[in-house]
Amino acid sequence: MTKAIFYHAGCPVCVDAEQHVAGALDLSRYEVESVHLGEAPARVAEAKAAGVRSVPALVIDGAAYHINHGADLSALESR
Amino acid sequence: MTKAIFYHAGCPVCVDAEQHVAGALDLSRYEVESVHLGEAPARVAEAKAAGVRSVPALVIDGAAYHINHGADLSALESR
Repeated sequence: MTKAIFYHAGCPVCVDAEQHVAGALDLSRYEVESVHLGEAPARVAEAKAAGVRSVPALVIDGAAYHINHGADLSALESR
Repeated sequence: MTKAIFYHAGCPVCVDAEQHVAGALDLSRYEVESVHLGEAPARVAEAKAAGVRSVPALVIDGAAYHINHGADLSALESR
């Protein structure tokens, strides 16, 4: 199984991407985890390290794929 | 089956997104078509009408999802 992590912030663009892109992945080949960075701020650093610059984004096998644009990751970093 | 069209221009960002995102879709639920807009310029208008502004992009069930950024669609329109 390949790991796919969908990072989002609950925004409308995020919800749409989660339903239509993350939700379209083949679950027989991908283990999909959904992470709401607003609710799990401790994982922002992990997303950033994987190359995520904005949400929604999918990290598949370690590479970041930004899907449209909901919010910059910098807006979610704890200040 | 839901129709998913992957629009690209053969660029490195496009090839990567095709392999890792379009290639991750569940083929038991999605019929995936890959369209190289450089080779099929007549389909640029169709992509534009679906809301595609840059490639690579996936149009799933009529909605456009831009995946990272390879090239603006305007660079592929015939002049």
